[in-house]
Amino acid sequence: MSPRVALLAGGVGGAKLADGLRRALPAGDLSVIANVGDDFELHGLTICPDHDTLLYTLAGLGDRERGWGLAGESWNALEQFATIGAPAWFRLGDRDLALHVHRTAQLRSGGRLTEVNQALQRSLGLHEAPILMASDQPVRTQLRTADGWMEFQPWFVGAQAKPEVSEVTFSGAADAHATPEVLAALAAAERIYIAPSNPLVSIAPILAIAEIRSAITAARARGVQVIGVSPIVAGAALKGPADRMLAAAGLPVSPAGVAAHLSGLMDALLVEAVDLTPALIAEAAPHVATLIPGSIVMRNDDDRLRLARELLAL
Amino acid sequence: MSPRVALLAGGVGGAKLADGLRRALPAGDLSVIANVGDDFELHGLTICPDHDTLLYTLAGLGDRERGWGLAGESWNALEQFATIGAPAWFRLGDRDLALHVHRTAQLRSGGRLTEVNQALQRSLGLHEAPILMASDQPVRTQLRTADGWMEFQPWFVGAQAKPEVSEVTFSGAADAHATPEVLAALAAAERIYIAPSNPLVSIAPILAIAEIRSAITAARARGVQVIGVSPIVAGAALKGPADRMLAAAGLPVSPAGVAAHLSGLMDALLVEAVDLTPALIAEAAPHVATLIPGSIVMRNDDDRLRLARELLAL
Repeated sequence: MSPRVALLAGGVGGAKLADGLRRALPAGDLSVIANVGDDFELHGLTICPDHDTLLYTLAGLGDRERGWGLAGESWNALEQFATIGAPAWFRLGDRDLALHVHRTAQLRSGGRLTEVNQALQRSLGLHEAPILMASDQPVRTQLRTADGWMEFQPWFVGAQAKPEVSEVTFSGAADAHATPEVLAALAAAERIYIAPSNPLVSIAPILAIAEIRSAITAARARGVQVIGVSPIVAGAALKGPADRMLAAAGLPVSPAGVAAHLSGLMDALLVEAVDLTPALIAEAAPHVATLIPGSIVMRNDDDRLRLARELLAL
Repeated sequence: MSPRVALLAGGVGGAKLADGLRRALPAGDLSVIANVGDDFELHGLTICPDHDTLLYTLAGLGDRERGWGLAGESWNALEQFATIGAPAWFRLGDRDLALHVHRTAQLRSGGRLTEVNQALQRSLGLHEAPILMASDQPVRTQLRTADGWMEFQPWFVGAQAKPEVSEVTFSGAADAHATPEVLAALAAAERIYIAPSNPLVSIAPILAIAEIRSAITAARARGVQVIGVSPIVAGAALKGPADRMLAAAGLPVSPAGVAAHLSGLMDALLVEAVDLTPALIAEAAPHVATLIPGSIVMRNDDDRLRLARELLAL
């Protein structure tokens, strides 16, 4: 008997684990709580990069080689954007664009972000609509750089994550509510996982919503284990700038840094076996009670399923 | 020395003549006053079908065989719209979609329709930006059918122009102003042409704007000739439902019906030579002083230029 699971997740790494868990669990037993901190507006369209990476990955439609967007995507609208002087730094494929256009139209007609995105999930074959938005209100990750404050995507994609980040805030988080769907998922969860996503900009924005943090605390109070998977292996991020961002925050570039950033939140953190040294255990001890060695790198579908089963067996 | 020209135009037929006139005239001597009655919102985007047909045709980017949209267009976003349950009855190509997305973003940022569309014209190579919107305010053609009132595109494309039309109105026309650009073009015009567009739904919405009608009257008062080109040849519309609509309005399906619908507005109407019978002349006489025989069907680029020169030589 597997536990009902809530997974806190960002984009790529989160989507891989979500895919493994979805395949390992009975239909309906997984709720993915998606980071909304990367969401932004471009061309007047509301774009939800982490939700959409989760959506495309879970629906089996994601491009494996590129690592984002749809497989078999075309780029003719993007070319036209460049021609007519519209922003073209964020690569929207033609099918992807249609999704943003429709989502934005539904939101403007009064649709709630969670419901609009769940309808998109169902339309692409995810009938149980497992991806929940952390909030229906905007919570936007803002990064302080030498050039001033930047939104996440202009920094990550537009500036190729090059400007050093000296501070991170989540604007809107103080006023944002968790959705009823997220609160229900956390109330029903028998296990809470934290995906191997960037702790500073993928997991932290979810936890910046007070109602979510409280719901996780409440779940732990009734005995639910919160188990993370380290996004740092052998001193480097599996993907993206988590390693540089940990270093810039004055934290160790190791699972201990991850534990420190999410201090007190997790009961256990799954780390790559090679990383599990006495020094790491000592360094992580103030922040997480248990470090569990495992094989956490997901190179293919089998890895995703294997890691999911490893987590469920804990 | 050719005259400075203002051309009142709808989509396809208007675009062909506009293209001929643009090639026949010195740069900057042509202003096309585009029908806005077909404009509509789909997916929350502002779509200007007649402007865009004029734009694509004048820029040499239009699809000749299909007769609308861009040559070499792809349809992947449209396929995605259908998949995710978004409206797909109006065939938006991928590049075309990008243009509507950008236009809508510019309008939402406070841009004026005429300026936004002129920027699009320049970006696609029409440096003098010759296409002027009849109004920056919405003037929407509404058609009364047995199924109730319909907007133009849902009727024309969505219902394939099948429902019989018993009444046509132009909602918003009473409150709409002509743009400064249109008023300047009409004030500077030494000749005003009316394209072989549907008189009921392409030309009439332009004339429904009182300031445009007054400016044409003022031009005629200072001696400017207003010359139309018949969209009806040998008892049938060159394209579209103008013939059926004239019949439904109780008007003859002939240049006389066109003259009657635009009664008193034109000094002359160019008709296909074969149509110029004594009966036609008698029937048209109350509505237009002169019928001029010509060769008005535009099958190719040469025809467009020939007709333009024929008009300029009058």
